[in-house]
Amino acid sequence: MSNLTIEGPVCPVPLRHTTHIVMGHGSGGKMTQDLVDKVFKPHFSNPALTAGNDFACIPSPAASPVGIRLAVSTDSHIVAPLFFPGGDIGRLAVCGTVNDVVMSGAVPVGLTAGFILEEGLEISILEKVVESMSLSAQEAGVPIVAGDTKVVEKGKADGLFINTSGYGWVDDKYHIGGELAKPGDAVIVSGTIGDHGIAVLAARGDLGFETTISSDVAPLNHMIQTLLAEVPDVHVLRDPTRGGLATTLNEIAVQSNVNITIDETAIPYQPAVLTACEMLGFDPLYVANEGKVIVIMPSQYARKALKILQSQKYGQNAAIIGCVEKTPEKRVLLNTRIGSTRILDVLSGEMLPRIC
Amino acid sequence: MSNLTIEGPVCPVPLRHTTHIVMGHGSGGKMTQDLVDKVFKPHFSNPALTAGNDFACIPSPAASPVGIRLAVSTDSHIVAPLFFPGGDIGRLAVCGTVNDVVMSGAVPVGLTAGFILEEGLEISILEKVVESMSLSAQEAGVPIVAGDTKVVEKGKADGLFINTSGYGWVDDKYHIGGELAKPGDAVIVSGTIGDHGIAVLAARGDLGFETTISSDVAPLNHMIQTLLAEVPDVHVLRDPTRGGLATTLNEIAVQSNVNITIDETAIPYQPAVLTACEMLGFDPLYVANEGKVIVIMPSQYARKALKILQSQKYGQNAAIIGCVEKTPEKRVLLNTRIGSTRILDVLSGEMLPRIC
Repeated sequence: MSNLTIEGPVCPVPLRHTTHIVMGHGSGGKMTQDLVDKVFKPHFSNPALTAGNDFACIPSPAASPVGIRLAVSTDSHIVAPLFFPGGDIGRLAVCGTVNDVVMSGAVPVGLTAGFILEEGLEISILEKVVESMSLSAQEAGVPIVAGDTKVVEKGKADGLFINTSGYGWVDDKYHIGGELAKPGDAVIVSGTIGDHGIAVLAARGDLGFETTISSDVAPLNHMIQTLLAEVPDVHVLRDPTRGGLATTLNEIAVQSNVNITIDETAIPYQPAVLTACEMLGFDPLYVANEGKVIVIMPSQYARKALKILQSQKYGQNAAIIGCVEKTPEKRVLLNTRIGSTRILDVLSGEMLPRIC
Repeated sequence: MSNLTIEGPVCPVPLRHTTHIVMGHGSGGKMTQDLVDKVFKPHFSNPALTAGNDFACIPSPAASPVGIRLAVSTDSHIVAPLFFPGGDIGRLAVCGTVNDVVMSGAVPVGLTAGFILEEGLEISILEKVVESMSLSAQEAGVPIVAGDTKVVEKGKADGLFINTSGYGWVDDKYHIGGELAKPGDAVIVSGTIGDHGIAVLAARGDLGFETTISSDVAPLNHMIQTLLAEVPDVHVLRDPTRGGLATTLNEIAVQSNVNITIDETAIPYQPAVLTACEMLGFDPLYVANEGKVIVIMPSQYARKALKILQSQKYGQNAAIIGCVEKTPEKRVLLNTRIGSTRILDVLSGEMLPRIC
């Protein structure tokens, strides 16, 4: 893909030292990390939080002889518009949190849902969203067990925001986390990249042309549980959401103190997503996904894992895209289609705001 | 208190059948219950959710021989203004969820925090809130183990919303829930009523007069764990937040299929709160509290429980205020100061919006 000449999204002004919140603080990239490092971590520091995963694992009570841990995660959902091809804020809120819990190796067992509603929201819209949440929760097999509803005045929210938190039980036999990638490991992605971000953009009417791209938003728990049952020795699971594949791999490279090299020709894309990205000047490697997982594991299991993923509904286009290397530069490198190698940096500012 | 002549807050129009969200849907009263019953419950029905408590209890995995359950809860916080006498949105977000988890009898072990930030928010304000969350979490001894940050455009949120969810372990020896009040039980409240709502109103400058009232927002876990260690046979614990003491007692009366009678002269108030309510025409029984708990238990343990509560920092003004009766009218009755008895109904619309 020779058009991939952008060296990561460009941030027009140096916003990292701003005194006010800007949209880039919600990008999932460098600015979000800055905010977390400078504002949240100094106050909330504890081993579970600073581990840097999208979940936290809590040991069972001391009295328990059982080899399990509790995994928890949370995500607020602010996607605009509320409905888009392939999904809506409700399906996103359920799948996003189910997937974050699953990335620990856990079997998710419950979700909570907190709604912030804007005065004037049509109740029929809320009903549609709730129905979609219910269907997604049924598909995942994870019930919504606790909820909360708040209302703010017209103009003080944008229709509807949903926070979900989720929890599940992790068997102690699994040791999965962003810090566990090892040199020699293979890197798999479970399907085509960039679908969600482009689908949401299309729903906003911002593309300027017609497209048939649907969001990939889906619960990945059944697929991952099937994988782990056959191949328990997985080192890293992570869903490349905000910031896309490139930013997520960078997070893992830093956490694990390794380089990760991926091959441009191996990355699965939908042609329509590539076309849209070309026309808009986006790099699809930075576009959000909501139904994909990066799997990093010893390379001897990679073929077996690939077959298992490809046998699953949400893994049919899974591919081995790269490997983990010893050089501890904590970088992500892309071997391009034309034979060169370039550094894939972290997303800096905000390329596509309010994508999840 | 002869001025308590209002028959519950008046709702100016019959809003329960509206097609759009109105502020009353966030009241915690009848309209919120309507929304939950008509929109959420038909889709999210499961035993944990329909139990009607502010927490859900999940059994440990089947393999576990340990007598514990997992308790979870969630709350979104939208209080305006962000800072008020005695607290701020950060302290509220931590204490509100710690307390909801504790009401199951659980020892809370972790919180998640999801932030929705408005573009343009001063980062120094966020830092103050985060510091306050940290101090409150330290006081409670419950770490924030997972977080999420989202940003929306200026004008699409009101500065800062925080969702927290919380987790804790409940020992199987406790059987505590809103459905477990029994005829003959005593009703205790752990301190003065209405402080939080009036403090927030004062911070808005809406009182029209000066007051020194501070919010009671506080983590109640240490007090309740001390109580349960000495008096394990507690039937109901619930914090009277949105909708106040009257609405919360009504929820319990319906869940347990009992009447609850309380004595006006026994209810502890701060004189300044009573004065403010008199001047504003509010009934303090419907004003929110954020650091109080209703304890319902067999009357033979009531004196002991009262002593324990009064020995604790946040229970010094605890009082026995009423009893549970056999007549299954599911009503809350107030024996007034002047010798009459009146029905305390559920809060209908919205008396004080955005109080938590």
